[in-house]
Amino acid sequence: MSLIVKNAKLLRPDFGISEGNVYVEDGRIVEVGNASVEAEEVLDARGKLIMPGLVNLHTHSPMSIMRGVSDDLELMPWLQKIWKIEPKLTEEDMYIGSSLAILEMIKTGTTAFLDMYWYMDGVAKAAKELGIRAFLSWAMVDPDKSQIPHARLAEEFIKRWKDDELVKPSIGPHAVYTCGEETLLKAKDIAERHDTLIHFHLAETREENEGHVKATGERPVPWLEKIGFLCDRLVAAHVIWVTKGEIGILAKHGVKIAHNPTSNMKLATGGVMPWPEMKEAGLTVGLGTDSAVSNNNLDMFEEMKIAAVLQKAHRWNPEIMKAEDALGMGIYEGAKALGLDYGIREGALADFILVDLNHHKMIPHIDLISNLVYSATGDVVTDVVINGKIVMRDRRVPNEEQIIKRALDRAKELISES
Amino acid sequence: MSLIVKNAKLLRPDFGISEGNVYVEDGRIVEVGNASVEAEEVLDARGKLIMPGLVNLHTHSPMSIMRGVSDDLELMPWLQKIWKIEPKLTEEDMYIGSSLAILEMIKTGTTAFLDMYWYMDGVAKAAKELGIRAFLSWAMVDPDKSQIPHARLAEEFIKRWKDDELVKPSIGPHAVYTCGEETLLKAKDIAERHDTLIHFHLAETREENEGHVKATGERPVPWLEKIGFLCDRLVAAHVIWVTKGEIGILAKHGVKIAHNPTSNMKLATGGVMPWPEMKEAGLTVGLGTDSAVSNNNLDMFEEMKIAAVLQKAHRWNPEIMKAEDALGMGIYEGAKALGLDYGIREGALADFILVDLNHHKMIPHIDLISNLVYSATGDVVTDVVINGKIVMRDRRVPNEEQIIKRALDRAKELISES
Repeated sequence: MSLIVKNAKLLRPDFGISEGNVYVEDGRIVEVGNASVEAEEVLDARGKLIMPGLVNLHTHSPMSIMRGVSDDLELMPWLQKIWKIEPKLTEEDMYIGSSLAILEMIKTGTTAFLDMYWYMDGVAKAAKELGIRAFLSWAMVDPDKSQIPHARLAEEFIKRWKDDELVKPSIGPHAVYTCGEETLLKAKDIAERHDTLIHFHLAETREENEGHVKATGERPVPWLEKIGFLCDRLVAAHVIWVTKGEIGILAKHGVKIAHNPTSNMKLATGGVMPWPEMKEAGLTVGLGTDSAVSNNNLDMFEEMKIAAVLQKAHRWNPEIMKAEDALGMGIYEGAKALGLDYGIREGALADFILVDLNHHKMIPHIDLISNLVYSATGDVVTDVVINGKIVMRDRRVPNEEQIIKRALDRAKELISES
Repeated sequence: MSLIVKNAKLLRPDFGISEGNVYVEDGRIVEVGNASVEAEEVLDARGKLIMPGLVNLHTHSPMSIMRGVSDDLELMPWLQKIWKIEPKLTEEDMYIGSSLAILEMIKTGTTAFLDMYWYMDGVAKAAKELGIRAFLSWAMVDPDKSQIPHARLAEEFIKRWKDDELVKPSIGPHAVYTCGEETLLKAKDIAERHDTLIHFHLAETREENEGHVKATGERPVPWLEKIGFLCDRLVAAHVIWVTKGEIGILAKHGVKIAHNPTSNMKLATGGVMPWPEMKEAGLTVGLGTDSAVSNNNLDMFEEMKIAAVLQKAHRWNPEIMKAEDALGMGIYEGAKALGLDYGIREGALADFILVDLNHHKMIPHIDLISNLVYSATGDVVTDVVINGKIVMRDRRVPNEEQIIKRALDRAKELISES
C-alpha cells in the first residue's frame, strides 16, 4: 500500500523542523521532501506536524478495564483491591481491556508499546484489529515455584505469534520478588531460543532490594549478573533504586530501561530514577506509562512532561533534562529498546503521527519541541499511521464507541461481582 | 437568562455522584434534581458529568503569547529571555495573549482565574469577550523604588472595573524581592480602600528567603507580619520555603495560598510545598498553573494530577493527598480564596462544566473522582457555563480560529524583532 502525506511540517531526527511531503510504500518511508507522486492514500497535513509515533515502553494494557479500582493506597491494600478482580479476568477481558488501552494509546499518539500480562492472545487480537505495533510479554510469576505452566503458556504464545508483522511476542518474568532463579533462567532460555525480548520489573522499591538482600545476601542487580540473567534482550522497568556501580553493570550487559515517572510518583515508591547517571553510562532509557491502575492514563505526552519536570525538581536543576531529552526518550530511545527504526527519514518505519499545530496548546510556534513536551496533551494528535496504514484519521478510530461501551459494561459486571 | 441542563450525572459537594437536571436563572443555580421547566437555553447532558468549573488561582495570562520562549534554563538566563520581549508588549498584546490563555482555560474547564500582569485592561477586554470570571491584579514592582506610577495605574484600573460583573480588579505587589515595605503597604492601602484582593508571590525559592534575611535580618513571613502586610485579602502564590511556625502565622492572618506544583518542578525551585502542614493549620490552598512560560500549559486537570503525585512522591506516602483532596483544591479551595460560591447546589454560582463520560480517559466508571484527577486531561470537557451563560458548547468557543491566528502572528513578530 502507498500513502502520501502532503504539506506537513516535519520533525527531523536532529529535532529541527523542515517542510515537505512524506511518501510511504509497504510500511516504510520511501521519500521525504518534495515527493509529489500519486498514492493510494493521501493525508493533507497543512497546519500539522509529522513526527514519529511515541513508544510506550512499559504498560499492562488489559488493566485499563480496572482503571479507578484502587488509588491513593499503600502498596498492599492497593494490590489487594486489584487481586480481588484479577482472578476473574478471562482472555475475552484481556481483549476488552486492551482494546480500550490501545484506543487511548492511538488517540494520544502512541504507535508501539511493550506490554506485560497474561492471556495475551486477547491483547494480540485487539492490537491486530486496531493496527498498533504490539510487543506482548506473557508474564511469569512463581510465588509457589510453579513457573512451569506459565513458561509453557508463554512459549506457546510466542510460537503462535512469532511470525506476525505487528505483534511481537516475548516473555515477562515479573521481578526478583516474584520469580526465583530457575524461573528467570527458564525465561531467558525461552527468549534466546525464540529470539525475543525479556520484559521485567527491577529495583522499583527499597523493599524489593532489602527483601532480596535478606533472601540471597545480594542486591538484585549484582545477583542477576551472577546468575547470568542480564543481557541485551532485557527491558527492565522502573530501575529506581540502583547505585552508580549497578548502572555500570546494566550498561555493560546492554540492558534497556523503561522509566515510568508518573507511576513511581503516584505509588510513592520513593526516590527518583537516576537518569543523568544512566545517560552518562550510555544506557538506552525509554518511557512508559505503566498501567491505567497506577498512572492512571496512557498519555505519553503527559509522561514526557512529568519525566522532565521530575528530574528538574529532584536535582534542583532546570537544565538536567531538556525538552529534547524527554522527546527523545518518548520516541527514539523507546524505539531503540524495541529494535524499531523510527524517524521521519527515508527507510524508517512508517509509524508516525500528525499533530495539529493550530491546537490551542501548540500556540504560538516559538519552540515546537517545547510545546510538544511541556504544553501538549495527547489530544493534539489528529492522525496516526502505523506500518504505513492510517489507524486514526481526523481523530476518529474505527469502532471506538463499541470499544468504549464494551469496556464500560464489562467493568461494571466485574465490580458488581467483586 | 434561564438555562436547563438535562439528564446529567452531578458531582455533589460531598464528592458523591447523583443524577438529575440543573436549572439556572440569572447566573445562579436555582434548582438541582427533577427540575423540568422550560428555559431559554437547554444543554442535553446525557452521558456527561456536571461539575463546578476549575479555578486557576495563579497565572499570568498575557504571557501565553511567549509560550516556548524560554525553557530548560536556570532562573537568570530564563528571565533574561523573557525580559527581552516583555518591554515590547502593548495593551493590545495583553489582549492577544490573554485571549489565547482564556481560550485554553475555557477549553480545559477553568471558569475563573486570578491573574497578575500589567496593562490589564487588555486582559479585561479578552475576559469580557470570552465570558470568563477574571480576577485581575495589576502588578507592582519597584526595583528603583518607583512604585508610584504602578500604584497609580493599578488604582485607576481598579476604579475602572470595580463594578463589573465578571472582571474583579485587584492589586499585585510582585514579591518581597521586587517590592519594598512602602510599596507593599501602599498596595495594601489601595486594596483596603477599594475592597479588593492582594495577589503576591511568596517564598518561592531559598534565594528569596536568604536575600530577605540579608536585607532585613528577617525571613519574609515574619517580616511581612511585622510590617502589617498579612491579611485575609492576600492570596500568596508558591509558599514553598516556609516553616511550620510561618504556616501558623499565615493561618492566623487568613492568608490564602495558590499552589503551583508544575511551575515549581519545571523551574526547579527546589523543595515541595508543605501541603499536609498547611491543611492541618486550616489554610485555604487552591491550585494555579502559573504562566505558559513556566508550566507551559494552563490545563488545571494536569495540575490536579501533578499536585497529588508530587505530594505522594515527596512524602513517600500514596495516601497523603488523595484524588478528592486534589479535586477539592482545583475547585472549592480556589473558589473560596476568591470569594466565589461554587458547587452543584441551589444558590451557587452557575459556573460549571460538562465532562464527556464516554471520553476514552474517563472509561470505565469505577471511580469518577479518580478518573477526573488521575486520568483526564482538559479535553474531556465538552461544555462550559459561566455566570449562567454557555461560553463553550460541544467544544466550540466562538472565534477560536481568530484568537489562535492573531496570537500566532503576533508572537512571530515579537520573536523576529527580538
